[in-house]
Amino acid sequence: MELYSDRLQEYCARIERAIPSYLPSKNPLYGTLTEAMAYACEGGGKRLRPVLMLEWTRLCGGDPYTALPFACALEMIHSYSLVHDDLPCMDNSPLRRGKPSTHKAFGEDIALLAGDALLNRSFEVCLSAENRKGLSEEAVLKATALLAETAGIHGMIGGQAIDLQSEGKTIDLTVLEKLQEGKTAALLRAACKMGAILGGGDAEKCRIAEDFGREIGLCFQIVDDILDVTSTEDVLGKPIGGDADLEKSTYVSILGIERARKLAEQRTDTAVRSLDAFGDEAEDLRRLAQSLLNRNA
Amino acid sequence: MELYSDRLQEYCARIERAIPSYLPSKNPLYGTLTEAMAYACEGGGKRLRPVLMLEWTRLCGGDPYTALPFACALEMIHSYSLVHDDLPCMDNSPLRRGKPSTHKAFGEDIALLAGDALLNRSFEVCLSAENRKGLSEEAVLKATALLAETAGIHGMIGGQAIDLQSEGKTIDLTVLEKLQEGKTAALLRAACKMGAILGGGDAEKCRIAEDFGREIGLCFQIVDDILDVTSTEDVLGKPIGGDADLEKSTYVSILGIERARKLAEQRTDTAVRSLDAFGDEAEDLRRLAQSLLNRNA
Repeated sequence: MELYSDRLQEYCARIERAIPSYLPSKNPLYGTLTEAMAYACEGGGKRLRPVLMLEWTRLCGGDPYTALPFACALEMIHSYSLVHDDLPCMDNSPLRRGKPSTHKAFGEDIALLAGDALLNRSFEVCLSAENRKGLSEEAVLKATALLAETAGIHGMIGGQAIDLQSEGKTIDLTVLEKLQEGKTAALLRAACKMGAILGGGDAEKCRIAEDFGREIGLCFQIVDDILDVTSTEDVLGKPIGGDADLEKSTYVSILGIERARKLAEQRTDTAVRSLDAFGDEAEDLRRLAQSLLNRNA
Repeated sequence: MELYSDRLQEYCARIERAIPSYLPSKNPLYGTLTEAMAYACEGGGKRLRPVLMLEWTRLCGGDPYTALPFACALEMIHSYSLVHDDLPCMDNSPLRRGKPSTHKAFGEDIALLAGDALLNRSFEVCLSAENRKGLSEEAVLKATALLAETAGIHGMIGGQAIDLQSEGKTIDLTVLEKLQEGKTAALLRAACKMGAILGGGDAEKCRIAEDFGREIGLCFQIVDDILDVTSTEDVLGKPIGGDADLEKSTYVSILGIERARKLAEQRTDTAVRSLDAFGDEAEDLRRLAQSLLNRNA
């Protein structure tokens, strides 16, 4: 089963082309910093977050491409988090998606700055007058505020902090869920809800988008954990050879494969059912949710 | 000569009290991350950037305290940049303002995350619906966009990149000015112009604010460089014992003390003269500019 329908595949291609256009131009004045930023955002991933954002914009009645700058901005935040996660003082991963991680390719100092620059750039992109043409000021403020909130201490960074805090410890399901709600689900939640906001969705549609994003985000991580023990391939963009895998609590270590699989199925069901209000228009998202559950890589 | 008038001193006290209120509450779930964020923002500095912002809001006809969240957000960005600058892969500074630097106090992993979290928090604070009450959406968007622009690759981070790029090399005045326009002047420029925007200043007033901020920012660095060779005190919030001081080109190494002093005086004059349009109301800023030039610590 293909992950993306034709429409989502088209979004993905547009996003792939658009990302470099929202990054700063190459400038030797800054040494290799601009190259390192581009390198960190280079393909390999499925661009799941930005694809979801565009589709939710469409589902809520907007032109999906008005959300393109915001979608690329979200992907920059995802990319910066990988750069900083791979650093020696964090997971110490020499590889990412089969290539040298950013600090291996450019040095630690440039990787640190490139991560900072990508996080910062994300907000530059969302807030620039040119990129928010055709959108209401209120929608831009709400969507960008949500991006900041979900990327921050009560979202992704909070998840990373719980992760650090849990190193070498056995944690229970409650803590693991809090960790993954931050580290993995927060940006997927942001992707869907930002899309809904930018598409002009009402409060109820925005709530559905947010719930859908959270459920598939948590499901995604469960499937990841299952694939980690049933597959040795590295096509998920996961780091290899780092310190992160040592003795970590996962959905599988806590629940076992069978119960973890069951939980992932329940979450996918919840996500798919939440789309009822959108009728046939949400078919691509239903298929995507099922494909994420059934992926084998 | 005191740095601050009574009014600016009052701003400074309000800012000092307000910063913790815009930081996330202490939460053991995140280990020591919230403490590290607070530690990185703790006093010692003169809070020059937020004080300037509030005064420019007042000068342009606004209530200075409507800018308070933005002023604290700008200070968080300044603080994060110091945390990341002090890391072993950057300046490797064990001390900051006479205290252990954040990574010495909390570990490198938490310091890295705390820096990320402060940068991100800054945008959360600017964009939250509660903090932008009483301000127009357009002013909030413009001010926050300016914050992102000046903190990013074409501002502060760009300056840090030029700094890395210049390590162990002799650079000329043109490159040093580009470096310092980013590393030091960009956030001071942001402080003044964001204040003017939030105070409702027209394009001309915003331009004056920006020029004033740039001039005193560059002047500040020249005086810093002069004090570095004429004083051994560490009351400027500079790191001690790091790798940063080795063989760096400075205004003094390039121009000599006399010409550097002259350039600082010219810049202060330019900054002070740019305030003519504001008449007596700008007296506190004139005194501040003179005090920054004449400070001996």
